[in-house]
Amino acid sequence: MSDTSLYRLNGRSIVAGKTAISGGAAFHGYQPADGSTLDPEYLSATTEDVESAVAEAVKAASALAQSSGKQRAAFLRSIADGIDAASAQLVERAHRETALPVPRLTGEVARTSNQMRLFASVLEEGSWVMARIDTADPARTPPKPDIRSMLRPLGPVVVFGASNFPLAFSVAGGDTASALAAGNPVIVKAHPAHPGTSELAGQVIVDAVRKSGFPGGTFSLLFDAGHEVGAALVKHPHVCAVGFTGSFRGGRALMDLAASRPTPIPVYAEMGSTNPVFVLPNALRERSDALAAGLHGSFTLGGGQFCTKPGLVFAPRSESTGFMERMRSLTGETPAFSLLTSGIAGAYQHEVNQRKKHLIASGKANSTGYSAQVTLYEVSGDQFLSEQELSDEVFGPTTLVVQCTNTAQMLEAARSLEGHLTATILGTEEDLQQNVELLRVLETKAGRLIFNGFPTGVEVCHAQVHGGPYPATSDGRSTSVGSQAIFRFTRPVAYQGLPESALLPELQSSNPEGILRMWNGAWTRTAAEKP
Amino acid sequence: MSDTSLYRLNGRSIVAGKTAISGGAAFHGYQPADGSTLDPEYLSATTEDVESAVAEAVKAASALAQSSGKQRAAFLRSIADGIDAASAQLVERAHRETALPVPRLTGEVARTSNQMRLFASVLEEGSWVMARIDTADPARTPPKPDIRSMLRPLGPVVVFGASNFPLAFSVAGGDTASALAAGNPVIVKAHPAHPGTSELAGQVIVDAVRKSGFPGGTFSLLFDAGHEVGAALVKHPHVCAVGFTGSFRGGRALMDLAASRPTPIPVYAEMGSTNPVFVLPNALRERSDALAAGLHGSFTLGGGQFCTKPGLVFAPRSESTGFMERMRSLTGETPAFSLLTSGIAGAYQHEVNQRKKHLIASGKANSTGYSAQVTLYEVSGDQFLSEQELSDEVFGPTTLVVQCTNTAQMLEAARSLEGHLTATILGTEEDLQQNVELLRVLETKAGRLIFNGFPTGVEVCHAQVHGGPYPATSDGRSTSVGSQAIFRFTRPVAYQGLPESALLPELQSSNPEGILRMWNGAWTRTAAEKP
Repeated sequence: MSDTSLYRLNGRSIVAGKTAISGGAAFHGYQPADGSTLDPEYLSATTEDVESAVAEAVKAASALAQSSGKQRAAFLRSIADGIDAASAQLVERAHRETALPVPRLTGEVARTSNQMRLFASVLEEGSWVMARIDTADPARTPPKPDIRSMLRPLGPVVVFGASNFPLAFSVAGGDTASALAAGNPVIVKAHPAHPGTSELAGQVIVDAVRKSGFPGGTFSLLFDAGHEVGAALVKHPHVCAVGFTGSFRGGRALMDLAASRPTPIPVYAEMGSTNPVFVLPNALRERSDALAAGLHGSFTLGGGQFCTKPGLVFAPRSESTGFMERMRSLTGETPAFSLLTSGIAGAYQHEVNQRKKHLIASGKANSTGYSAQVTLYEVSGDQFLSEQELSDEVFGPTTLVVQCTNTAQMLEAARSLEGHLTATILGTEEDLQQNVELLRVLETKAGRLIFNGFPTGVEVCHAQVHGGPYPATSDGRSTSVGSQAIFRFTRPVAYQGLPESALLPELQSSNPEGILRMWNGAWTRTAAEKP
Repeated sequence: MSDTSLYRLNGRSIVAGKTAISGGAAFHGYQPADGSTLDPEYLSATTEDVESAVAEAVKAASALAQSSGKQRAAFLRSIADGIDAASAQLVERAHRETALPVPRLTGEVARTSNQMRLFASVLEEGSWVMARIDTADPARTPPKPDIRSMLRPLGPVVVFGASNFPLAFSVAGGDTASALAAGNPVIVKAHPAHPGTSELAGQVIVDAVRKSGFPGGTFSLLFDAGHEVGAALVKHPHVCAVGFTGSFRGGRALMDLAASRPTPIPVYAEMGSTNPVFVLPNALRERSDALAAGLHGSFTLGGGQFCTKPGLVFAPRSESTGFMERMRSLTGETPAFSLLTSGIAGAYQHEVNQRKKHLIASGKANSTGYSAQVTLYEVSGDQFLSEQELSDEVFGPTTLVVQCTNTAQMLEAARSLEGHLTATILGTEEDLQQNVELLRVLETKAGRLIFNGFPTGVEVCHAQVHGGPYPATSDGRSTSVGSQAIFRFTRPVAYQGLPESALLPELQSSNPEGILRMWNGAWTRTAAEKP
């Protein structure tokens, strides 16, 4: 186990590698388990901090854009090693700031460093730049020019830390990893619910920036008790893109801010999803207890504070008696959870009260800290189809079962859905064959379709898509998890007629990196003589 | 030469394959050469036409999403053959509606059908879907699921025809080709400046839809004398994306409309660009006449009505005397052009008057139709850096030479630029080595960097990037020309744990299409046994 006091917390923003001396409005971290405050006091970043973080990021952007993939890979590996070395301190502080269990946080630290290493391996392999080369044909009429293109970085990226993943979707999380990997400087606006964890991760990155010889402006970490710093960053003319994970309201506000700029910029906001699950008849007949146990485990995991929590379950009423009995009894046995913040706990309580008339089971109570009882609701398919608000996400350990008259009504319900991160079908292969249209409809509603699995637990891999149509995200053309996330902070640039010496190695005819490229329309790793 | 009366013009919108019977406000095409009107009269689409085109597109979307790439390739080839067969009629009508020369329009017809065939070949090859497969590992803790992802269509796409490319960026143009290729239904809002050409191309596509057995809703063509139909389409809740080529004002209005929807959607708007050219000292010493001739040809090509027209030329004053002499004399000899519309001719006249004090040469005059004299302007580097409006695009046969004190001032000017479609350096290799920073700055300002070429003439190929940072386009992460344009109307979707029989062929382990896929992180065309 690593030392639990590797880093000292200063309670200040880090601007281009330097700890801010002063600051604005003060705030503290809180312990959700008992509501007590945590030291040190944190000071909000000032207008000058914002200006200086962006100005230094602009300077760093040019150096990063000229760095090689291998240099950036070494930098990401240095961050990963730093996170692992600080693991004990990160877990201890994150546990106090979030009340998430230590094993979950230990896993999240490993996920965070492994994400960095995944992007490092993508950079080392090098083909991700999608190099395309069309060679010249001077004999053609008109002469055909030599054109080569590859993906290039966008420039300074602002990342908002998420409350529910204090590590893997926060300061050193997926958006930071993918933005740095693609060669963009990053300015993180820390989530105020876990400032200490944020500062620790920030110090790890600052150390790695120094060791790797990148400019200080490669990374900044700004604190804020309110929303001013985030808004100022998103409106700043030199900021080029935004990554955000949080509430629908927060995400939409950033989207609107970015779209109304004189120069609009892309916002990748992961906002909210109820992750509908469709349980089909044959599966219910064969294994209703196992399905109920799986779903219960999934909707209560981490106190139901996952963006992929299954918050809507559609089942055919005639086959679901045993399934519902088991769901009720599992819910009744479940202990209460400490939620992440008093705000989340309060919103949960409010929404639970709104749905009171549909309550069919609740878990054990606990009155300390930001506590929440597990709740299970049930409505009919007709009710669901007529009451829009039943589709809304309720963040926390709760789910709503929709008892449908038959699979035709389940299909109707599927058609009525908005965009989600995931959609799940639990069924036999026969069920699937009998409900092909359901699969096709769900494909248009989600970023990831799951068959006989549960949506929580998002594998970090090459094929992963953690995204989905609005309002699940601001931009369903992208993923925030997995190696494809590197594409979000890039744009293609073409080079026409440039001499070999002025081209980046990825586009030189001799293919010094040995990467996969499209050469006159065919994918190949071949090194070519001068074309 | 094909028959010039293959199709009969009806003057009505085509809604999901059916010619509309009635319509709203009437309008005509005009002949820019003499300002006379052209038959038939066109009627604007009605609210019902919009509703019905979108409703049929939604129905078609599902069939298109399930069609194979090879089926869509055959469909695109059928459109291409239809365009070639109607070539004579298309050229004749387009010549009357635009006054663009017959050879240019004949070339544009070929480009339009070749674009369709390029996308057909991309579909036939199949690897464009970026299939990624990560196989399961049930022995891992926790068990690793099987996840597979590929690019899927977005749904109904609205395309706005451009005035300056009545064929290649219009009804059957690049956006329509890439959207259909990716499996999206398309609704085109025809540009009112060439309604007859639009209707002809629309009838070609309708024929191909029928022959290919795709649903009628795969394609609709709507006319409008004003902006209501376009706005209604962009605001329609079932429209999923927009492609546009036109003015900055029009593009930004669509961006704002799309961003303010309850469900925002992507807008790919190509809006405006002055395509800066930097002429370096050694090149001026070696070949100033050739550079002047090339630039003159490029800025007057098609009456200067190309989005890639070089509208800003930066040169070091000390080396540019001969170059400027040649530019002036070439300009003086150039005949007048007929511009595309009375609006464009009027705007050109207005902007030319605004710049009057900087005029150093003008071409021959002509008073018939929407005529425009070629104009050449000159300012100092200091003037350019202090007068923002000198960077503005002036659509038509004009360019502005900025006489800089030295290459350092040229670099300063480069840094001051906004986003452009292209940026060009004319120089020797020595010039380039001495101005590496200029190249790096320009890379951040443009979608395509050109060395010793001219920006007009956009090669349709795999490596092409016809895009660039705002305000050149709404979204610099994309190209509207070349095979990479297929990505703009797609999103990745992941499938977790699906049985092979429920997967599209591109994701089946046996790789029946033999496409290039990322299999557990490595690109391969190998067919795998069941994983």
